[in-house]
Amino acid sequence: MDMAPISVEELQLATRNHGMPLEALRWPVTPVGLHYLLVHYDVPVVDEEAWRLGVDGEVEAPVELSLDELRALPAHEVVATFECAGNGRARFEPRPVSQPWLQEAVGTGRWRGARLRDVLALARPSERAVEVVFTGLDRGIEGGEEQDYRRSITLASAHEEDVLLAYALNDGPLPPQHGHPLRLLVPGWYGMTNVKWVARITVTAEPFTGYQQARGYRMRTSDDEEGTPVERILPRALMVPPGIPEFMSRDRTLAAGKVTIEGRAWSGHGDVEDVEVSTDGGVTWSSARLEPPDLGRWAWRRWTFAWEAAPGEHELACRARDAAGNEQPLAPAWNVGGYANNAVQRVRVTVS
Amino acid sequence: MDMAPISVEELQLATRNHGMPLEALRWPVTPVGLHYLLVHYDVPVVDEEAWRLGVDGEVEAPVELSLDELRALPAHEVVATFECAGNGRARFEPRPVSQPWLQEAVGTGRWRGARLRDVLALARPSERAVEVVFTGLDRGIEGGEEQDYRRSITLASAHEEDVLLAYALNDGPLPPQHGHPLRLLVPGWYGMTNVKWVARITVTAEPFTGYQQARGYRMRTSDDEEGTPVERILPRALMVPPGIPEFMSRDRTLAAGKVTIEGRAWSGHGDVEDVEVSTDGGVTWSSARLEPPDLGRWAWRRWTFAWEAAPGEHELACRARDAAGNEQPLAPAWNVGGYANNAVQRVRVTVS
Repeated sequence: MDMAPISVEELQLATRNHGMPLEALRWPVTPVGLHYLLVHYDVPVVDEEAWRLGVDGEVEAPVELSLDELRALPAHEVVATFECAGNGRARFEPRPVSQPWLQEAVGTGRWRGARLRDVLALARPSERAVEVVFTGLDRGIEGGEEQDYRRSITLASAHEEDVLLAYALNDGPLPPQHGHPLRLLVPGWYGMTNVKWVARITVTAEPFTGYQQARGYRMRTSDDEEGTPVERILPRALMVPPGIPEFMSRDRTLAAGKVTIEGRAWSGHGDVEDVEVSTDGGVTWSSARLEPPDLGRWAWRRWTFAWEAAPGEHELACRARDAAGNEQPLAPAWNVGGYANNAVQRVRVTVS
Repeated sequence: MDMAPISVEELQLATRNHGMPLEALRWPVTPVGLHYLLVHYDVPVVDEEAWRLGVDGEVEAPVELSLDELRALPAHEVVATFECAGNGRARFEPRPVSQPWLQEAVGTGRWRGARLRDVLALARPSERAVEVVFTGLDRGIEGGEEQDYRRSITLASAHEEDVLLAYALNDGPLPPQHGHPLRLLVPGWYGMTNVKWVARITVTAEPFTGYQQARGYRMRTSDDEEGTPVERILPRALMVPPGIPEFMSRDRTLAAGKVTIEGRAWSGHGDVEDVEVSTDGGVTWSSARLEPPDLGRWAWRRWTFAWEAAPGEHELACRARDAAGNEQPLAPAWNVGGYANNAVQRVRVTVS
C-alpha cells in the first residue's frame, strides 16, 4: 500500500483512538474494548449520582432527569453497527489530516436505553420545534472554536422508534469511553451523530449551526464550499483477513486448499442485498452467501464465501450493495474532510 | 515534538493496538477498553467449554485442566499496572520501527485467578525443572519464524505468591483481547511476559530459547549483540494533561489560577518513593504529594501537585524514583528494539 508518511499529530490521535482489529468481525456483537473508539476531546469522568439530563428549549415543560428516572422509562434494545464518518480516511490521496483510519473504525453493540421520544414527551416540545440538539460533557477546541461537543437531529428523526438514549452496552453499564452515563443512538447514521456523555437536550425552533454540524462532517471538494452534511452510513463489507499475520507488515499467509472467507456487511441506507467477493484482485466477482439478519435491521450481516486457495499470491476483495442501490466503489471519491470512504477492502495473501 | 514521519506499517499497528488516553489516569483501576492493548498476531476466538490447559514437560504427573477446574482452585486477586515494553518507542531518535507508542501503553487491572504455583503443584515439576514455558493460542510470523506466541519465566518466579493464571478482569470474565479464557500475570514485569490465551504450560530442564525470549525483547545497542533480556518495569510517572485539548494537535489550554495536577506513578523494581513535578520545562523540580499505596504493591500510586498557573506558555513535566534507586531520565538511552523508554513526560500548556 502506497501512502504519504503519517505526521506526529496523526500518530497522537491514532494512539488514543482505536479501530476494531478485523479478526473481531468473527463476533456478532463486538466485545467491549474491541469496538472502535473516536473521542474528539477527553473522556470525561462522570459521577452518575450527581449527573442529570436537562431537557429544555422549545418545550412546554422543561425537565431534569436522573439516571434512575431514565431507567424507569420503558427500556428498548437495539443492536446497531457503528462506523466512524472518517473510516477509510488514510486511504484517500492526498490524505486529509485527521484521525488516520484505514478501514477498521467499526463495531456492533447491543445498546439498551429509553426511547428519545419518550423523554421528549415528558418535556412536550412546542409547535415551533424543528430540531433537537445534544450537548456532551466533552469539551475542547476545534477549528479555533472552544466548544462542548454538540450535534442535532431533526424532530422527525427524534421520534423514530429505534432512536435511544442508551445507558447500557452489551448487557453492562455504558463504559466511560462510550459515553457513560448516557449517549444518543441514531441507528444507521455515522458515529458523530451518536453524542456521548449527553448532559443536555435542547429543542430548537431553528436548525442547529454549531461547529460539528455546519463546519465539521460535511462533504466538500474544496475548502470554500458549504458542502452537504454527512449522515447515513454507506454500505461496506469487510472480511476477516484469512490465515496468519506477519507481525510488522500484517501480510497474511495460509495453506492451500478449501478456505471459508468470512465477514460482515452493513448499510445505513437499507438492507444489504448482496456481497460479492473477488479472489483475483477485482477482475471477477462472485456472490457470497449472506446469512439471515438475525441481529435486526441496524446490525451487520454475516457472509461467507468458499474459496479453493491455490499456491501463489492472491488479492482478495469484497463489496456490498444495499436495497437503496448503493454499491461500494473500487476507488473512492475524494473530499476535504476525508469522510465516508467505503471503497472496497483488499487483502493480499500468500498461499503455500 | 519533532519526529520522523510514521510509515504505513507502523500505522497499521497503531490502528489495531491502542494506548490508554492519559485522562484515564483518573481511574484507580482502568475500565475495560481504556487499558492499553498490544496483540502480536490476531486475537483468537476461544470456545471456553472446549478449551483445556495442558501442563506437561518436566513434571511427574502431566495434567489437563478445564476452566471450571481452575476456578475451583483457591482464587487470588492482584491489582497490577501493566506497561508495554515498547512504551515510548516513538520518542527514540532514530525511531525503531514497530508499534509506535508515545507514552500511553499502560493500564491497571484487577486480575483474579488461580496461583500458578498451585497449578504446577498438581503436575509436580521434577528435580530437573528450571523454567516454565507458556504457549498462547495466537499464531503468526515474526522475524521470519512462524510461531505460537511463547515466553518463559524461571521456576523461582513461577512460585511467587502473586503470579497468577488469571480468568477474570475488573470483576468480569477475561475479555477476548486480554487473553480469554486464561492469561499469565507476572506483576512488575513488562507486558510481553504476561502471555495471553494460554493453552499449554511446559516445564523445562533448560532455559527457553524461542523467538520472543532470545531474539525479541532484548536490550541491544546494535543488531549483532546478544543483548540482555527486558524484564521488570522501570519507574514512570504520568500526569493527566490539564485543561482542555485542541482536537488535532492535542495542545492543552487552561485558565489561570490554582490547578491541581494529578497523575499516577509505578515501578516493577520497588515502591515508588518520590514523584517530582516541574512547571518550567525541567529547570526546577518539586516533590508531589504521593497518596498511600491503597491498591497494593503492584499497582500505580496516585499523586497530586498544587500549581498556581500564571498566564503564558508552560512546559510541565513529572518523574518518579523507586525504592531500588531507579529514577526516570530526562533523555532516553537508545536501543535497537525501542524498549523501556521511561524518559520524563512533558506537557505543554497555554494558560490564559
